[in-house]
Amino acid sequence: MSAAFALQPWSDAHLQRIEHCLSDWVTAEAPAGLGQAMRYAVLDGGKRLRPLLVLAACEAVQGEAQLALRPACAVELIHAYSLVHDDMPCMDNDVLRRGKPTVHVQFGQAQALLAGDALQALAFELLCPQDEAVAPQVQAHWCRLLARAAGYQGMAGGQAIDLISVGRSLSEPELRTMHQMKTGALLQASVEMGAACAPALDPRGLAGLRDYGRALGLAFQVVDDILDVTADAAQLGKTAGKDAAQHKPTYVSLLGLQPARDLAQALLAQAQQALTASGLVPVQALHALARMVVNRDY
Amino acid sequence: MSAAFALQPWSDAHLQRIEHCLSDWVTAEAPAGLGQAMRYAVLDGGKRLRPLLVLAACEAVQGEAQLALRPACAVELIHAYSLVHDDMPCMDNDVLRRGKPTVHVQFGQAQALLAGDALQALAFELLCPQDEAVAPQVQAHWCRLLARAAGYQGMAGGQAIDLISVGRSLSEPELRTMHQMKTGALLQASVEMGAACAPALDPRGLAGLRDYGRALGLAFQVVDDILDVTADAAQLGKTAGKDAAQHKPTYVSLLGLQPARDLAQALLAQAQQALTASGLVPVQALHALARMVVNRDY
Repeated sequence: MSAAFALQPWSDAHLQRIEHCLSDWVTAEAPAGLGQAMRYAVLDGGKRLRPLLVLAACEAVQGEAQLALRPACAVELIHAYSLVHDDMPCMDNDVLRRGKPTVHVQFGQAQALLAGDALQALAFELLCPQDEAVAPQVQAHWCRLLARAAGYQGMAGGQAIDLISVGRSLSEPELRTMHQMKTGALLQASVEMGAACAPALDPRGLAGLRDYGRALGLAFQVVDDILDVTADAAQLGKTAGKDAAQHKPTYVSLLGLQPARDLAQALLAQAQQALTASGLVPVQALHALARMVVNRDY
Repeated sequence: MSAAFALQPWSDAHLQRIEHCLSDWVTAEAPAGLGQAMRYAVLDGGKRLRPLLVLAACEAVQGEAQLALRPACAVELIHAYSLVHDDMPCMDNDVLRRGKPTVHVQFGQAQALLAGDALQALAFELLCPQDEAVAPQVQAHWCRLLARAAGYQGMAGGQAIDLISVGRSLSEPELRTMHQMKTGALLQASVEMGAACAPALDPRGLAGLRDYGRALGLAFQVVDDILDVTADAAQLGKTAGKDAAQHKPTYVSLLGLQPARDLAQALLAQAQQALTASGLVPVQALHALARMVVNRDY
């Protein structure tokens, strides 16, 4: 069933809508160059994995696609802001991102800091429109999921662990916790925000999607670690080999290259089993996105 | 009527509840030192003007005080995060805040950046509890108000204007716009989030509170500009004279000291008239807070 599903046309159609909404919502009207910096950070780049997960999860629960565009863009804004701040000199000090100069290189550090801050606020603004088409309980639920995934229990907390882990060795459970917070939480929230677009979802369906999101989130990071040593900067659109250079613990440094690859495949199988266990039917796009995450080469 | 109201016992009682909630909600459990940095940024300092405005506005509309503690703390977290980022070397490069070393001096720049980011996320998390005591439409409305006030149309936008205004002269309308965004928006949102704690509010009451918030927000900044030249660092708990040293346009540099003082008094009168026009009765605390803002010496 899922083998017959072609991801490319599905994602092309959805990407067009995502890019359109992002360009509309991340307005150039923000004053004093802030809008330009925000748009530069968000537009014309990125695989849009998180928005695609939101839309695919919405499809899986047969929710309203139009509704899902708000959380799809909101989660991408959180991701984009985290990259802007993460690239700054006091963090990773990176000058290249998605093949372009990073935001602070292009606009200065102060503007980069503000652009990141404003993108985070805008993410929550998108989730709470003064629009009766989006039920208040859905708005509040979206905000709850996104705030937890972005904050100290999620992305920001994982980055703090990342900061202090440079040059240290971590155990596999410690590395897993860091990645589940730093990257996994937002990927999982993407799936859950998409699922929240259905008026009601049975516990089995929701549990399956959560398990899928958790396995996918970890798989994503394992593959990232693999690509950091096997791909070059041109493929990645960012500096390669940087984890090793910074003596950051990774799945490759911890397990070795082939066992890391095996782990990624095992996590893919886990994600697929979770979808089957969910009992949901229109899950082809979620299946295909999981395969794409694990088998990508950039 | 309002002359008989004693602000001190009112604010003492409310401050105790605010501090208690902040200490509960800004948890030390955030990993890898992040929790310590977040708590350092928020606790044991600050006048808590924004939380007091939320609680006073909630009283004015006879809303439920218990409910107002969430937006009261959320708006303070946004304020606190903005100070952390604003103090960083790439922005104002300030080493002293509330009489203590700034967060990046104490914990390093990377941790300060993350602590600010996590505080913003936590603010929205506080507004969306999984708690039936807070109606979803109230949660969504709070988030909408706070996100707009914190983002590119509000605080972050005002800071971007501030960045490019260093060493330039601004006209009075330009200076007013900058301040209304940078400081006024969050003060106004405080009043509106407090007002949102009542199940329903007539348009006249809401319009009055909005006008009050707008006048108060601007008055706050005019007085800040005055204190920057008249007070010393020990009184302010932060570096004094820094606007002049950085050639930032201020109300004092634009109008002169005495006209700036006259403007502050005129804005106080405006705020008080707006309260009268609101038709709301229990507005003594809002009156007293406006007097405190304008007549403070630190």
